[in-house]
Amino acid sequence: MSGNTFGDIFRVTTFGESHGPALGVIIDGVPAGIKLDQEQIQHELDRRRPGQSKVSTMRQEADAVEILSGLMDGVTTGTALAMQIRNGDQRSRDYGNLASCFRPGHADYGYFKKYGIRDYRGGGRSSGRETAMRVAAGAVAKQLLAHFGVKVQAYTTRLAGISAKKIDLDAVESNIVRTVDPDVAEAMIAAIRAAQEQMDSVGGIIECRADGVPAGLGEPVFDKLDALLAHAVLSVGGVKGVEFGEGFAAADLRGSQNNDAMSPDGYRSNHAGGILGGISNGNPILLRVVMKPTASIAQDQQTVDENGNPLTISIHGRHDPCLVPRAVPVIEAMAALVLADALLRNRSSRL
Amino acid sequence: MSGNTFGDIFRVTTFGESHGPALGVIIDGVPAGIKLDQEQIQHELDRRRPGQSKVSTMRQEADAVEILSGLMDGVTTGTALAMQIRNGDQRSRDYGNLASCFRPGHADYGYFKKYGIRDYRGGGRSSGRETAMRVAAGAVAKQLLAHFGVKVQAYTTRLAGISAKKIDLDAVESNIVRTVDPDVAEAMIAAIRAAQEQMDSVGGIIECRADGVPAGLGEPVFDKLDALLAHAVLSVGGVKGVEFGEGFAAADLRGSQNNDAMSPDGYRSNHAGGILGGISNGNPILLRVVMKPTASIAQDQQTVDENGNPLTISIHGRHDPCLVPRAVPVIEAMAALVLADALLRNRSSRL
Amino acid sequence: MSGNTFGDIFRVTTFGESHGPALGVIIDGVPAGIKLDQEQIQHELDRRRPGQSKVSTMRQEADAVEILSGLMDGVTTGTALAMQIRNGDQRSRDYGNLASCFRPGHADYGYFKKYGIRDYRGGGRSSGRETAMRVAAGAVAKQLLAHFGVKVQAYTTRLAGISAKKIDLDAVESNIVRTVDPDVAEAMIAAIRAAQEQMDSVGGIIECRADGVPAGLGEPVFDKLDALLAHAVLSVGGVKGVEFGEGFAAADLRGSQNNDAMSPDGYRSNHAGGILGGISNGNPILLRVVMKPTASIAQDQQTVDENGNPLTISIHGRHDPCLVPRAVPVIEAMAALVLADALLRNRSSRL
Amino acid sequence: MSGNTFGDIFRVTTFGESHGPALGVIIDGVPAGIKLDQEQIQHELDRRRPGQSKVSTMRQEADAVEILSGLMDGVTTGTALAMQIRNGDQRSRDYGNLASCFRPGHADYGYFKKYGIRDYRGGGRSSGRETAMRVAAGAVAKQLLAHFGVKVQAYTTRLAGISAKKIDLDAVESNIVRTVDPDVAEAMIAAIRAAQEQMDSVGGIIECRADGVPAGLGEPVFDKLDALLAHAVLSVGGVKGVEFGEGFAAADLRGSQNNDAMSPDGYRSNHAGGILGGISNGNPILLRVVMKPTASIAQDQQTVDENGNPLTISIHGRHDPCLVPRAVPVIEAMAALVLADALLRNRSSRL
Repeated sequence: MSGNTFGDIFRVTTFGESHGPALGVIIDGVPAGIKLDQEQIQHELDRRRPGQSKVSTMRQEADAVEILSGLMDGVTTGTALAMQIRNGDQRSRDYGNLASCFRPGHADYGYFKKYGIRDYRGGGRSSGRETAMRVAAGAVAKQLLAHFGVKVQAYTTRLAGISAKKIDLDAVESNIVRTVDPDVAEAMIAAIRAAQEQMDSVGGIIECRADGVPAGLGEPVFDKLDALLAHAVLSVGGVKGVEFGEGFAAADLRGSQNNDAMSPDGYRSNHAGGILGGISNGNPILLRVVMKPTASIAQDQQTVDENGNPLTISIHGRHDPCLVPRAVPVIEAMAALVLADALLRNRSSRL
Repeated sequence: MSGNTFGDIFRVTTFGESHGPALGVIIDGVPAGIKLDQEQIQHELDRRRPGQSKVSTMRQEADAVEILSGLMDGVTTGTALAMQIRNGDQRSRDYGNLASCFRPGHADYGYFKKYGIRDYRGGGRSSGRETAMRVAAGAVAKQLLAHFGVKVQAYTTRLAGISAKKIDLDAVESNIVRTVDPDVAEAMIAAIRAAQEQMDSVGGIIECRADGVPAGLGEPVFDKLDALLAHAVLSVGGVKGVEFGEGFAAADLRGSQNNDAMSPDGYRSNHAGGILGGISNGNPILLRVVMKPTASIAQDQQTVDENGNPLTISIHGRHDPCLVPRAVPVIEAMAALVLADALLRNRSSRL
Repeated sequence: MSGNTFGDIFRVTTFGESHGPALGVIIDGVPAGIKLDQEQIQHELDRRRPGQSKVSTMRQEADAVEILSGLMDGVTTGTALAMQIRNGDQRSRDYGNLASCFRPGHADYGYFKKYGIRDYRGGGRSSGRETAMRVAAGAVAKQLLAHFGVKVQAYTTRLAGISAKKIDLDAVESNIVRTVDPDVAEAMIAAIRAAQEQMDSVGGIIECRADGVPAGLGEPVFDKLDALLAHAVLSVGGVKGVEFGEGFAAADLRGSQNNDAMSPDGYRSNHAGGILGGISNGNPILLRVVMKPTASIAQDQQTVDENGNPLTISIHGRHDPCLVPRAVPVIEAMAALVLADALLRNRSSRL
Repeated sequence: MSGNTFGDIFRVTTFGESHGPALGVIIDGVPAGIKLDQEQIQHELDRRRPGQSKVSTMRQEADAVEILSGLMDGVTTGTALAMQIRNGDQRSRDYGNLASCFRPGHADYGYFKKYGIRDYRGGGRSSGRETAMRVAAGAVAKQLLAHFGVKVQAYTTRLAGISAKKIDLDAVESNIVRTVDPDVAEAMIAAIRAAQEQMDSVGGIIECRADGVPAGLGEPVFDKLDALLAHAVLSVGGVKGVEFGEGFAAADLRGSQNNDAMSPDGYRSNHAGGILGGISNGNPILLRVVMKPTASIAQDQQTVDENGNPLTISIHGRHDPCLVPRAVPVIEAMAALVLADALLRNRSSRL
């Protein structure tokens, strides 16, 4: 009920705060018999790692993953797979008025009203560092999906008002903003640096596609595949919306434009983004999420403390001026978790 | 696992197809002691009912709700509350080639691949008629929410490319497209009629707001309040996207613009749509969903049958040329279900 | 949370009180493609039906089942299967002091403390009538199990201190106490009648066996197969204990006596009752439950009312003087639900 | 689905094998604001620890618990509480024919049929070592329960055929078999030593009582409090049965004997074991479980290998000749988990 578990059969439960000793994840429902590539798990964590480029935070964290259970001789046993990363840099420090005031754009106030107390050291459980374990779990999901020919890839399509004009999937990991259009990468990077110099931050849009998804995944009513994917990606901090296929543009289309006709060779278009009536239709799944600009900025902001007294704060520290580049592997991971679970759930659809 | 249940404490499970004998819902977790207003439940169903206006399908269905358990002397007992509506018009008819071909824009193909069979009589469980029981359950959720001062209201903000220019919440139920701007209602209605005459359909955007939501609802990681709301509304057929507060527009904002400053009187703005870090912050919750244009249109469309043979179909029958007006109460219901559940879940957040 | 749903993939949710209009069940997770034998469902309900013999209550209820969704042309569609029975006899009557006092041996007091109110009309949701829908759902589970060669059968092994001396599975349904030893049936019947004449009631023991269960069902830690079966049968009103294989007798055995040796032909004994470490081992599953004597008796009993005032009550009405014979199909149903679910859950154990 | 999570609001998920690097637990749903006594958690683990007495295995494991998240300044934050113990002694060794054959009385064969592979190093996830994390979680549950005046205590009432004759709760922890009757402790110890000398093992019965449980806990239908407790204790390896109050003896009682009369001062007896109709009634909760004799014995036993070939094995190593003494804290922990969860679930029973 605490919402700390995601998925039904392929199912992850996580723990950890940025300022505690460790973060970890238990994955239940990993089928037995998968030869797990641990380097690939580490590789995915490295893609999310802070300090990886000049547009990400300068914090240096190794985030070396350790597998604690569920493997024998490198093969999954079918029982709980646990992974963990230790937090390196936990020196206590002076949080100043951050310990007693609510940072604009953060969950501080909500946590305080919810729990009566809150972990002011880096946001506690609301820290973006929590997503590391999603990425580790997603890496396992991707390996399961690979057995079924499914591939998930995300990339930046818009950043600080600059849009990708073309789709070059191979270029994504070769530029530090992970945009799918290498021609706009430099402009995006420049925009991030400009915002940072002005003690500000920028947002953007990430698209995620899944190829090879068989038709028939998703459940009819409440657990439609798009509903599950929406749940998954909106659970990532900073995401403020999601759309599938034509998405919000479908509001202005007519049925005759938006429907995907079928031919003996399959669908002739993919306005639906690969999901109809909540069930995958064999087309690539296409979704887009919007990431808000980073809430932690160094400019002066008006806020209040726990007693309601007004004060001005400016948040210094090592924050990403744009969440988008490092969120790309997180969105991939969440999509992979949903698809892995949907594949396994579908094993009971027929006699 | 079949995804036919929604919610954790306040929890609904539904059944029923448009061409079966009845549709029903079991609501678990309704606290004891609520004096239930059954007329209000019927009223909500009437808002969703087909045949209610000249822009909705001409099907006439009474949809009279019957409460089968969970009430004594009109007061909830705390145990399973069951409600049901009977289907009136179930005459068997000739489905012609609809019985063997896949309608573009519908879940037909996905169901067929998933189950090996499918209910071609009105789409079976993928029929929009399934939403009736969501509305009935949502009406109960609204009554629970009213005890806590929470009010949920949805309305049309865009339809066929026409946008509402002002917000007049009192006007919503006085025009048949349920737009919040009565000045554009006639234009929206005319656009629907024009599409219908051209054997076509139109889409639109519904906004939903919840006032009176206390700060602290939602859970930290996977069950963030916005993630649950996104799950809820994306589970409604025809919805292709959702956004909160600034939503997709936040991609182009800077942190200094998007952050909501706080004063002793509360937040000074609501760019976040009432949710930060997945937890309600006391501001009104604001979300928008996009409804695609109705898939069932009378124009000729290219498709295939179950054997992959190409054919041309045109779908006649009593279909809404625009899903938006009747979807407004459905979106309200889904938001109410999430909030009622979140309120009850929050009862265990503190000692 | 309200505990009104049982099972993970094959999953039942029920509603209904003895004095409401109807009782019903939604079964989720029934795989598509099962040709459902509706007469067999009705047959199982008839086995549980009141008024079926001279040792059961004289209430006459037809309990005719109606299937409301999830079937097309008699075949399961894979979506929610709903069933319902209408309550015939709901005349309002004078409950006298039963409306305000707590019946010894019943849940009245607990419900009152839990909910603040309680349904005094037949116990509301604590009525044994609730089990009818378990039996209906169990009948569907049995049909699924039959596809995999699994058969579940329960029978009376002890009643009012009289034990069955032999196992004749074919004799069970030919005597009204459903004992597996027809030679003691008359003595058991006589003991029930004697108790009834003395305005009293008797208890007994039901054994349940499942043949054809493949090795490998059940989950390693919390959802061991025996844990799930224990949950299932203890959720039936009146059951006060369960044991597997040697059960409580194992307390006095040594490991060398209790271990089941293996040979190339399989296990040489079945002290374990077919489950080791929570996982089925291919042997028949064997469990026994104890049913307490019926709480509703006509003798004077000391109790209190809702204000704590003492009073004497005697409970008249149409109550079974022994729950055992009609509980036999209920225990079967619960075991079938667990096994059907375990079979489907096991589909994801391997790649 | 993998059954590795227990509880609804107060909810535990565990990982770890005896021969892996660590074991751990994530507890979700711990309310914020509990000042956690970490020494008490370690104390409970010490009660379960191997090597604690001459009747337990000689393995020496420190089992020092580390808390990894969910605490700030020693107070629970409301978010996921994670705990972990490292395995000390993981040297690889030669498992001989244990690696390929199925030990009688163990889950080996079931795991092999379920997963296609199995962890032969100590049984993997079926190892009794898994219960350490239940005890750690149960220690947290006990601290939550203490805030509500609930106390859980278990003790040995029968061992190797020797029964406790009196109830002296204060004596339990002062004898190494944890019997409630100190007068029979020496005889029980002698019986264990005798079995051990004969390369054999013995079983017994553990009783568990919970005092201070308020009336009203448990849910009406499938999640009756006794059903949840049964699920909990049967999920512990080696438990083969459970009974409440009179338990199996109720089979031979009459209703007039078994019913608990009420007076203005409360129930006059406790035949029901504190639960009626699945709901706690304010009386102490009383349950008993049977533990089978340890399956690992040094005597020769007949079994087969993975290819079905017969062979004789004798299991040497450091095994407890009787599971009962170290299982006492495990049963307590499981009961505490159920009651903590039931208390929190009950917070939503009324408006």
